[in-house]
Amino acid sequence: MTTSESQPVGVTVPQGFLAASTIAGIKPSGNPDMALVVNQGPNFDAAAVFTRNRVVAAPVKITQAALENGEPNQIKAVVFNAGNANACNGAQGMTDAQKMAEDTALALGLDATEIAVCSTGLIGELMPMEQVHGGIDKLAKDLGSDLDHGAGAARAIMTTDTVAKQTAVHGQGWSVGGMGKGVGMMAPSLATMLVCITTDAQASPAALDEALRKACDVTFNTLDVDGSTSTNDTIIVLANGASGIEPSQDELDEAILKACADLADQLQADAEGVTKRVKITVKGTGSDEQALNAARTLGRDNLFKCAMFGSDPNWGRVLAAVGMADADMDPDNISVFFNDQPVCVESTGAPGARDVDLSGADIDVLVDLGTGGNGAAFVRTTDLSHEYVEINSAYSS
Amino acid sequence: MTTSESQPVGVTVPQGFLAASTIAGIKPSGNPDMALVVNQGPNFDAAAVFTRNRVVAAPVKITQAALENGEPNQIKAVVFNAGNANACNGAQGMTDAQKMAEDTALALGLDATEIAVCSTGLIGELMPMEQVHGGIDKLAKDLGSDLDHGAGAARAIMTTDTVAKQTAVHGQGWSVGGMGKGVGMMAPSLATMLVCITTDAQASPAALDEALRKACDVTFNTLDVDGSTSTNDTIIVLANGASGIEPSQDELDEAILKACADLADQLQADAEGVTKRVKITVKGTGSDEQALNAARTLGRDNLFKCAMFGSDPNWGRVLAAVGMADADMDPDNISVFFNDQPVCVESTGAPGARDVDLSGADIDVLVDLGTGGNGAAFVRTTDLSHEYVEINSAYSS
Repeated sequence: MTTSESQPVGVTVPQGFLAASTIAGIKPSGNPDMALVVNQGPNFDAAAVFTRNRVVAAPVKITQAALENGEPNQIKAVVFNAGNANACNGAQGMTDAQKMAEDTALALGLDATEIAVCSTGLIGELMPMEQVHGGIDKLAKDLGSDLDHGAGAARAIMTTDTVAKQTAVHGQGWSVGGMGKGVGMMAPSLATMLVCITTDAQASPAALDEALRKACDVTFNTLDVDGSTSTNDTIIVLANGASGIEPSQDELDEAILKACADLADQLQADAEGVTKRVKITVKGTGSDEQALNAARTLGRDNLFKCAMFGSDPNWGRVLAAVGMADADMDPDNISVFFNDQPVCVESTGAPGARDVDLSGADIDVLVDLGTGGNGAAFVRTTDLSHEYVEINSAYSS
Repeated sequence: MTTSESQPVGVTVPQGFLAASTIAGIKPSGNPDMALVVNQGPNFDAAAVFTRNRVVAAPVKITQAALENGEPNQIKAVVFNAGNANACNGAQGMTDAQKMAEDTALALGLDATEIAVCSTGLIGELMPMEQVHGGIDKLAKDLGSDLDHGAGAARAIMTTDTVAKQTAVHGQGWSVGGMGKGVGMMAPSLATMLVCITTDAQASPAALDEALRKACDVTFNTLDVDGSTSTNDTIIVLANGASGIEPSQDELDEAILKACADLADQLQADAEGVTKRVKITVKGTGSDEQALNAARTLGRDNLFKCAMFGSDPNWGRVLAAVGMADADMDPDNISVFFNDQPVCVESTGAPGARDVDLSGADIDVLVDLGTGGNGAAFVRTTDLSHEYVEINSAYSS
């Protein structure tokens, strides 16, 4: 099973999937802003993971309902738009998201409960339904199974993304394809994470759900660039069994994990204003959950993130940040390593700590909270840069 | 009881307090970097509040011990240094902080358990004890009760502060003075909050403690600029009873509150890289604690803070942020007001929301979580600016 840059990528890599993209006129830029992915069967099994935010956008509610209603966990098409999140639009937002599903169903000869809807963009603006309606018509007429159609769909869902994100994992006679946009739980009010994964494997909704949740735990859920969580985050996987092959759960897990990991890497690398990719590992505490809490606390600390931007091995900020985490620790026995070099031992500076070279784009941070406990976890974050402030201070108005 | 800009301010305003400052040579800049505040009695009652961080600097531990040991809650002098936090220095850090207390005691003819020690600056660098020793000698020889000596002390404890912070509250025949530095729980690894409040009122340690904790809850503890908490934060109040007047607890509470509120305002205004002062009030949830949690969640959201920097009434980010808070809410009935103008009603945009003028330096944000509950709280935060990134990415190295 391989992920290779020289091999074809995208949602149309597996057999029996069609994609389309178009310029509907939602984005002021005039760039492509709607996409459609259609599963041609024979199976239509699906699973999805959604935002944990309690303020949930209308399209997320419609997609959740589609998974529950009609034939449960059966999705035949996913319609996407970028430029408008259709979040916080009240009853009209629900009406509009439902209409997107109905229009798509009508255009494809399907039922609205077989359609998932994914939207990303500005919160609190009503969806321009005339443009959306026209866009859906065009999408339905331009579906194709080639790689260009998949690549077009990946481009059409971009918002502040600078590059389209696609992946593929090739098994023995079956494959997984995928596309994603946004920057994970990174800058979600404007950059919801949307991911669509396709496979021609035979896989039950339960098997897909298990594989997807396991994969998300160690990929998208470890991305934490600014601690925020979008109203629209959606990760959906569609399986049609067109290959005739039913992989074992382990094989399915591995393929979905590889696809998610590859997309997560691309999301992190393209996070807004990023100059550093930082992996934070925490160990030596009471439980994995505590370790995750400490890793997130550090990954969200603006002082630490600014130090990373400055390539500054300021380990004092690491201690100050983890000291506020809800995790067991021995405050006098914390160790910190930057790029495998000890900078703090027993909560005290190590010789040469200030001279550690952090000028590269990738920085590894390891924190041992010193209790001897087995809890361990990691998160991936980024630095806090001028560019981040620039992008996020000049968006909506 | 009045706080007036035209009246004298500082730790030497109350009778019976001396102050001094000097250039010890700890700051590379050559600016004043040590200060001393001496209580001449007749009483030496004291109370203090310290950082909640579990990684605690040596001087904080020494001051905590001084309050507990010898005569409990009796402090006769506070020695300060800026330029070095003496945090995360292991056993040597404790030895050095203890030596600062002993040197100060020796120079003043006191016992080391009567001395509080406050340090601020870089974490993880050993204290230059030769300079500190010389500095303490000079401080003890230059004590004075005039306003200039108080002002000098306020200047000497500055780190990234751009202005010295002093206050005074004048009661009937007694007064409260104070100085502070840093930016609260704002940028603490480099900008610990240190506050010293003096009063010539008669007040028991218990009365001081009660007044100080009540005041901190609604002043310093509502400041939350980047969610971080220093290893060194210390707020100490000294009362000598020299006025011969014992105010009621209410009067004492009011005076200490006014002094703390004034200093907190100055700290917020001088927070690193600030262009906006933002007050966030949350109501309509289950409890004050839940409201505080939601207010802090919003106040720490980088996307919201960037929008404030851009004077952008992007209320969608407010909903996305509070949607992740651990507070009761009705996701379909959240209201948001910017500067008293409704921008979001029933979780939906209000007419004219995008046109609200946020160009001023002060922004008021009110969020009603829509449950009808009585929980309410506020925090004060700032925007996230280029200057913040600049200052915090180029500090230690």
